[in-house]
Amino acid sequence: MISKKIPKMIYGGDYNPEQYDLETMLEDMRMFKKANIDFVRVNIFAWATSQKDEVTYDFTWLDEVIDTLHQHDIKVGIGTGTAAHPAWMAKKYPDILRTEFDGKRRKFGGRHNSCPNSPNYRKYASLFVEKLVDRYQNHPSVLLWNISNEWGGACYCDNCEKEFRVWLKKKYETLDKLNKAWNTSFWGHTFYDWDEIVVPNLLSEHFGERQTMFQGISLDYARFNSDSMLECHKIEYDMIKSVMPDSIVTTNIMGAYKPLDYQKWAKYMDVIAWDNYPGIDTPVSFTAMSHDLMRGLKDGEPFMLMEQTPSQQNWQAYNALKRPGVMRLWSYQAVAHGSDTVLFFQMRRSQGACEKFHGAVIEHVGHENTRVFREVAELGEELVDLSDTLLDSRVKSRVAIVFDWDNWWATEFSSGPSASLKYVDEVHKYYQAFFNQNIQVDMVSVDTDLSQYDLVVAPVLYMVKQGYADKIENYVSNGGTFLTTFFSGIVDEHDLVTLGGYPGELRNVLGIWSEEIDALSPEHKNKIVIDKQLGNLKGEYSCNLLFDLIHSEGAEVLATYGEDFYKGMPVLTRNTFGKGQAWYVASSADDEFLQDLVSHLAEEKGFQAEVTAPAGVEITKRYKDGKCFLFVLNHTKEAVLVNIPNVNGINLLTKEQVQERVDIPAYGVAIIEQK
Amino acid sequence: MISKKIPKMIYGGDYNPEQYDLETMLEDMRMFKKANIDFVRVNIFAWATSQKDEVTYDFTWLDEVIDTLHQHDIKVGIGTGTAAHPAWMAKKYPDILRTEFDGKRRKFGGRHNSCPNSPNYRKYASLFVEKLVDRYQNHPSVLLWNISNEWGGACYCDNCEKEFRVWLKKKYETLDKLNKAWNTSFWGHTFYDWDEIVVPNLLSEHFGERQTMFQGISLDYARFNSDSMLECHKIEYDMIKSVMPDSIVTTNIMGAYKPLDYQKWAKYMDVIAWDNYPGIDTPVSFTAMSHDLMRGLKDGEPFMLMEQTPSQQNWQAYNALKRPGVMRLWSYQAVAHGSDTVLFFQMRRSQGACEKFHGAVIEHVGHENTRVFREVAELGEELVDLSDTLLDSRVKSRVAIVFDWDNWWATEFSSGPSASLKYVDEVHKYYQAFFNQNIQVDMVSVDTDLSQYDLVVAPVLYMVKQGYADKIENYVSNGGTFLTTFFSGIVDEHDLVTLGGYPGELRNVLGIWSEEIDALSPEHKNKIVIDKQLGNLKGEYSCNLLFDLIHSEGAEVLATYGEDFYKGMPVLTRNTFGKGQAWYVASSADDEFLQDLVSHLAEEKGFQAEVTAPAGVEITKRYKDGKCFLFVLNHTKEAVLVNIPNVNGINLLTKEQVQERVDIPAYGVAIIEQK
Amino acid sequence: MISKKIPKMIYGGDYNPEQYDLETMLEDMRMFKKANIDFVRVNIFAWATSQKDEVTYDFTWLDEVIDTLHQHDIKVGIGTGTAAHPAWMAKKYPDILRTEFDGKRRKFGGRHNSCPNSPNYRKYASLFVEKLVDRYQNHPSVLLWNISNEWGGACYCDNCEKEFRVWLKKKYETLDKLNKAWNTSFWGHTFYDWDEIVVPNLLSEHFGERQTMFQGISLDYARFNSDSMLECHKIEYDMIKSVMPDSIVTTNIMGAYKPLDYQKWAKYMDVIAWDNYPGIDTPVSFTAMSHDLMRGLKDGEPFMLMEQTPSQQNWQAYNALKRPGVMRLWSYQAVAHGSDTVLFFQMRRSQGACEKFHGAVIEHVGHENTRVFREVAELGEELVDLSDTLLDSRVKSRVAIVFDWDNWWATEFSSGPSASLKYVDEVHKYYQAFFNQNIQVDMVSVDTDLSQYDLVVAPVLYMVKQGYADKIENYVSNGGTFLTTFFSGIVDEHDLVTLGGYPGELRNVLGIWSEEIDALSPEHKNKIVIDKQLGNLKGEYSCNLLFDLIHSEGAEVLATYGEDFYKGMPVLTRNTFGKGQAWYVASSADDEFLQDLVSHLAEEKGFQAEVTAPAGVEITKRYKDGKCFLFVLNHTKEAVLVNIPNVNGINLLTKEQVQERVDIPAYGVAIIEQK
Repeated sequence: MISKKIPKMIYGGDYNPEQYDLETMLEDMRMFKKANIDFVRVNIFAWATSQKDEVTYDFTWLDEVIDTLHQHDIKVGIGTGTAAHPAWMAKKYPDILRTEFDGKRRKFGGRHNSCPNSPNYRKYASLFVEKLVDRYQNHPSVLLWNISNEWGGACYCDNCEKEFRVWLKKKYETLDKLNKAWNTSFWGHTFYDWDEIVVPNLLSEHFGERQTMFQGISLDYARFNSDSMLECHKIEYDMIKSVMPDSIVTTNIMGAYKPLDYQKWAKYMDVIAWDNYPGIDTPVSFTAMSHDLMRGLKDGEPFMLMEQTPSQQNWQAYNALKRPGVMRLWSYQAVAHGSDTVLFFQMRRSQGACEKFHGAVIEHVGHENTRVFREVAELGEELVDLSDTLLDSRVKSRVAIVFDWDNWWATEFSSGPSASLKYVDEVHKYYQAFFNQNIQVDMVSVDTDLSQYDLVVAPVLYMVKQGYADKIENYVSNGGTFLTTFFSGIVDEHDLVTLGGYPGELRNVLGIWSEEIDALSPEHKNKIVIDKQLGNLKGEYSCNLLFDLIHSEGAEVLATYGEDFYKGMPVLTRNTFGKGQAWYVASSADDEFLQDLVSHLAEEKGFQAEVTAPAGVEITKRYKDGKCFLFVLNHTKEAVLVNIPNVNGINLLTKEQVQERVDIPAYGVAIIEQK
Repeated sequence: MISKKIPKMIYGGDYNPEQYDLETMLEDMRMFKKANIDFVRVNIFAWATSQKDEVTYDFTWLDEVIDTLHQHDIKVGIGTGTAAHPAWMAKKYPDILRTEFDGKRRKFGGRHNSCPNSPNYRKYASLFVEKLVDRYQNHPSVLLWNISNEWGGACYCDNCEKEFRVWLKKKYETLDKLNKAWNTSFWGHTFYDWDEIVVPNLLSEHFGERQTMFQGISLDYARFNSDSMLECHKIEYDMIKSVMPDSIVTTNIMGAYKPLDYQKWAKYMDVIAWDNYPGIDTPVSFTAMSHDLMRGLKDGEPFMLMEQTPSQQNWQAYNALKRPGVMRLWSYQAVAHGSDTVLFFQMRRSQGACEKFHGAVIEHVGHENTRVFREVAELGEELVDLSDTLLDSRVKSRVAIVFDWDNWWATEFSSGPSASLKYVDEVHKYYQAFFNQNIQVDMVSVDTDLSQYDLVVAPVLYMVKQGYADKIENYVSNGGTFLTTFFSGIVDEHDLVTLGGYPGELRNVLGIWSEEIDALSPEHKNKIVIDKQLGNLKGEYSCNLLFDLIHSEGAEVLATYGEDFYKGMPVLTRNTFGKGQAWYVASSADDEFLQDLVSHLAEEKGFQAEVTAPAGVEITKRYKDGKCFLFVLNHTKEAVLVNIPNVNGINLLTKEQVQERVDIPAYGVAIIEQK
Repeated sequence: MISKKIPKMIYGGDYNPEQYDLETMLEDMRMFKKANIDFVRVNIFAWATSQKDEVTYDFTWLDEVIDTLHQHDIKVGIGTGTAAHPAWMAKKYPDILRTEFDGKRRKFGGRHNSCPNSPNYRKYASLFVEKLVDRYQNHPSVLLWNISNEWGGACYCDNCEKEFRVWLKKKYETLDKLNKAWNTSFWGHTFYDWDEIVVPNLLSEHFGERQTMFQGISLDYARFNSDSMLECHKIEYDMIKSVMPDSIVTTNIMGAYKPLDYQKWAKYMDVIAWDNYPGIDTPVSFTAMSHDLMRGLKDGEPFMLMEQTPSQQNWQAYNALKRPGVMRLWSYQAVAHGSDTVLFFQMRRSQGACEKFHGAVIEHVGHENTRVFREVAELGEELVDLSDTLLDSRVKSRVAIVFDWDNWWATEFSSGPSASLKYVDEVHKYYQAFFNQNIQVDMVSVDTDLSQYDLVVAPVLYMVKQGYADKIENYVSNGGTFLTTFFSGIVDEHDLVTLGGYPGELRNVLGIWSEEIDALSPEHKNKIVIDKQLGNLKGEYSCNLLFDLIHSEGAEVLATYGEDFYKGMPVLTRNTFGKGQAWYVASSADDEFLQDLVSHLAEEKGFQAEVTAPAGVEITKRYKDGKCFLFVLNHTKEAVLVNIPNVNGINLLTKEQVQERVDIPAYGVAIIEQK
């Protein structure tokens, strides 16, 4: 479990009593008790509150907060508070301010506003954390430490430019290697001195966020920026761990957030903690994928749902209320995917500034007689009842989808063939095909051991990192099934094309050669014609976006294009390689195709879901100590009856015995414990 | 009347003879005479023409202009010319240049280009006006003084930043108060020194014009910017009045122009003067509302239509010609709403630069044989005939709509619930419902005495200023009818939420509690279901945008939502409070609903229009000395027959006796004088 | 012919072996031979490769390249390499960097990145070219010199500002003249010192690329910017010619590229060379027009197709492959319009950076067994077969369309009447009407002698330069037919309106007065009603955008508007003037109208095409030594049978005799030689 201090699903959220007075805080305590809140995060944005100049620290307010919480038996996560620097610091040490992508130097304002390579930021952040650790290291209420908050964004200032050169020197050692890696003989970009290198932004190589004239430079800057923030994170992490090696230290991250390569960050997080803010139109499968991606960062260890809104957000264009039951449903969805906490942003609404219309456990009206509070309190009670039953249980998957930040960056920096290619969307299309059939998936990195999986899917594996092709060949030759798509195997880690024919290093295992890549506007479709029925896979489907013109070099052609001058050329191939198979989908296929393909693969490899469910009903499982917890999540606004053949157990939420079928109300949930 | 110097509707417009030569000016005089032009504004953009360096002023050209006009018996409004600084000044005194919202310092160019807090701008503007006053104070042709021109825009320079701090110090006295007002404990924004405060723009708190991270700061900056321009205006105003206390001093303003709080400006304008530029798709009701808003700035005193185009504009995407008759129609529409002038921009088209394709009384062809000139001349003759008949007559309204600039700013700075909420649109929806039923409306400020009105409508009264809730309670308890809408009563003057439940200070008078506010994209509609017919109000209507989830606390529920999880909850309530009633409309209702609601209220309170008219025909009245002037304005391109029961009088434009009915040609007008 | 060194269609393209190694280059030689490549351009972007600091030049790599090419009998065009400065130069001499339209100073990056008024750029570019000339002047392989590459863009830096003032002083001599030309009395813009003038950009007069507050300033800056680049070009041009007066010196330009007035550039290009990159949706008629525009720059002399992609591009949103046959088809289309070369960008794909997905003769796979290479090799063989047959043949046209860069700039800087008016689109509409009837057109400048044409069409001749109205009057009175449209004759070269009635100086020859110009959004249409049938011209057509309200002053009214308040007013007029006729089309007519109008004019003047063809089939002719080469280009994806009455000759591509009819496969071509 996350911590023995709370041997149950941890319940609570962000708490900013510095915005109110003591009287209000005591009222909060009363209401927290009613809702079975047992944990809050504090001090998240309170740097300026505690430090008014270089030398003066005043934590009396925080002492009072933590002591009051302690008196009410509520544990705390102490935020290090460094996600927004104080105004006085910005004024005295302007190097702390970021410079934007368009080259404009910022002034004081907002949050997540510090340059990660500012010497003053690093110095004062470190000093501040030192004070906090010194003061609260032995406090019995402290359950964890939360570094900063939603690290993110990027900076393009002169300090970053200097540090970028240092980072490059360390990486490439010589300018010759760098010139080669970036292919600078193109457009006469040869660098003869490290100091000639400038940050890639709208003033230099970019003419859009994704549009760059030198992919290699931009890619390295994306890595450098992620590393720079991580360096700041590590400074705080090391500071805390050096004093309290056994403390739990984390930071709240943001799912598929492009600027930060969380797969590199994870080892500096003792537990993965993430903030889940689906928009009103976010598919539930996307939320599920995000949970799985976060779970995958630490090889399936239970994670923390660190933030979600109890009701509505404020920063969307249209901030719909969560419909009755949805907060509970989505809380359990997190749990179903591996979370051992249910936490909110925020406990009480602010009175002023930009988040005052963000939902909170305690609304502006200030009392508990609200729909939102009632739902929170009811869930709180359920979580008390669940006790430690689910804690530390694990998800088991036989299918892995590869997700790689470097590949994401590189794919979307590409100039051509198609501006509409979005890495996460292509990954999600595949994820969704499994999700709709209730087949559990792990989202894995390129470092993950593949041998544990029956099927590994790597959509748009444009960049093949050193050794990864070997890893896949090994996996397949040992009996694994590998599936990849169009625009894969194109470049190496420097975004240099692997010469000799696409899909480059994957050509061998796939048994194909992709001669050309056609790109058409998304509304232009081609057909996928199945030559010989494979399970459900039959007839015709549609595809669009990119169209690889491939030749089989040993692979079996299972489907061909139905139109255009490449009509009859392969669009789906399967290559037998050693004991395994390697599949290739040469275009962006429609959802029906992916469903039928997944269903065929599942049948062939025997990883079909045991339980099928009506559309909109999600089924997932966690395992622990020989027990299986089956989650049935009804994402629809109608009650459903779900057949669960061979399932026989107790619905932990109703305490009722469940056998073979279960009724779930609109937006309802069942968690069935079976041996 | 505006001035005894012209005891009739003043007729003429902007005149820039400095762009041509004397010969052309004499030709202008000939044509002005033909069109009965009796007034022109001069020197509007001629600062550089008259002053070539710090010490050299040369007004001989202006002497000649004014003398020539005098010889032809044309009165003048002297522009102070400070709306565009000379190029030499920008070069020598760069502090005069503005800095943009994105932080970029401007160079010389355009107009309305001076920083309002530039010491050099204020110094040289003041000196220039002093010279003008000194020279022309006794000239018999001078009818009024026109300060600058269409004050507007904003500046974000270092001087503004410094002055902003001074302004804040004066307002808040202590940083403690400021920190509280802005809720700076949110996101660690506590200020420990005034100098830590920076201007809120794209480099600090903003990420869009409406999107700010600190509403309190942005709101104060909007006020400060409006005040800064007003300060410049006052410097000139005081300069002129100190020498000529009886002179008429004004500036031409722009209707519902967001950056400037004209309700604060009005007291430094001896007469309201405004520029009316409806676009091709502007509803006539919007123009009507704008006239009423302008009239309301000085409690209904007659105002000046200072600018309109005789034919087309140049700065719209598609600059349609005013169809034959439309210039006359819209001129009378201004008069119908309280204008005692009909003035144009401009008298003669420029030969070069960006306004050369803007319509003018004298077109590029240069002679009078044009459609445009003929229409101008015909109207000129009518205005001579009308003499002083209409001058000083007043509009009488029993209905007031509250319009408040602070509220406008605050509503649209809000982060959530809906990005589509536009204050002026919501106000206009209500205005239009009255307009379509020919019910006269006053557009009033929160300072206006309400006791004179039967009905006060305050759409989206998000911000309730100190004392305003009391004022409304008083008004209602004394028998008044008050109506407000969703997203009202939310914050105080600092944009701090009024805690304890929405609609805050209005909760008492409205007898409701709004627990939650749902926000959906505009295309998503709910239903308003009328429980019991009230006049025309019956059956179902639709609503969208925001949906207050309200509970009655005494108010009568007249309609409920027809859909979604709040189906059955109140959407229209009426609370009896003292001798009066307070209505609440909990969502953005469709036009039909508002029509029927207005018609019900009008019937109940007895303020229905006496005359009804076909769609597109506007009816309005002005009163004077026991006489009523009934305006019938046909905004359609078909002739109409309008029944005007009980009306019996003379059509001032045709001199015909009118009784019970009147025929109006396409785009035609009748003004019927009755005792 | 371009050069005796290659007495056939020159075949090859851009070649950047500096990106690869010698081994690869030898492989390239082998494949070039297979494809009959005889010419490549080298050193285009290799400045940094050859010069690593101010004093060190190292051309050994280029020696090797040119010698290797020489050994394989491939001629070279030597690029001067100045289209992208080295990084070290940007670092040491920041004045070399451009400043953007929004005022932001750029850092090192991209290409086409040097300020044309940078003293250091001019100095080092000149020195570099000197070295190149010195080294390679006598090399037998050198066929031509290619200055820079696709000159373009603009700079707004302080050096440009200073040079702009110098340029202005030279043009206007006195500030009085400048103030008058720019009409600076408008908005008080009078300049009293040259140094008060600043560059017109987003910081001064502009609020958009097309939106300016002072057309005169912006127009002069457009001229100045084009001249500044041309000055750089001339420095290199003169340098080369001073040493080798007989060398062929050119630069590759870009068709209808707005920033550069190629009609002024042409005299510093020994042969016109241009890069043709139609997008997937570019009409073939637009490509044809571009070829004709380029051919017109040097009065019809054969030009060079300097770049085209063999397969796909990389910088479009969707980079479709050229369908099989299309590369050949479009190559011959260039030839059909006057090209004596077929050249590609590029010979071998880059391995990294932004053009790595741009098509190339040699793809990433590296061998010749690709569709693209095969098509290139097949075309290479055909060109060998064609030998010098077509070289130096000329196109003959009886119709000219006037195209003028100053007019383009001025039309689109205009504030009003319509934001949707696009000069090139209006020109293309007319071009297309001729194209669809296979009538050959010359695209001419205002300097072209008109006497050689039966018909001169000048769409949207908004700006009438000094003497041009006389030239037209002369042309018409001597029997020519002139046709122009709405929004013509409005301004002089300074964008000052020609007073006295539109269409200004053209009023006399056209016999009309345009009183007003209505502008409506493009979806709003009016009707053109033909009063009396003229050939195919009959019944009704539609028109939109702008609507001149004209009065005949002698012209015959051939059609009138069918709607709106100007229904019945003339929309098509024809004025007999001397021995000729002048036509006026008062609105933007639909394609059908233009087709029928052209067909009527063709019939009347006898310049109909002798051969008609199915839609999508283009017919054009080149003449030489009493022979006529008839090109039949099938732009459709179906085979067609084309009737060519009276044609009897040999299809040069099949060697077959052709008589009266010819079969052309999908995307196929025939070139029929006749006496």
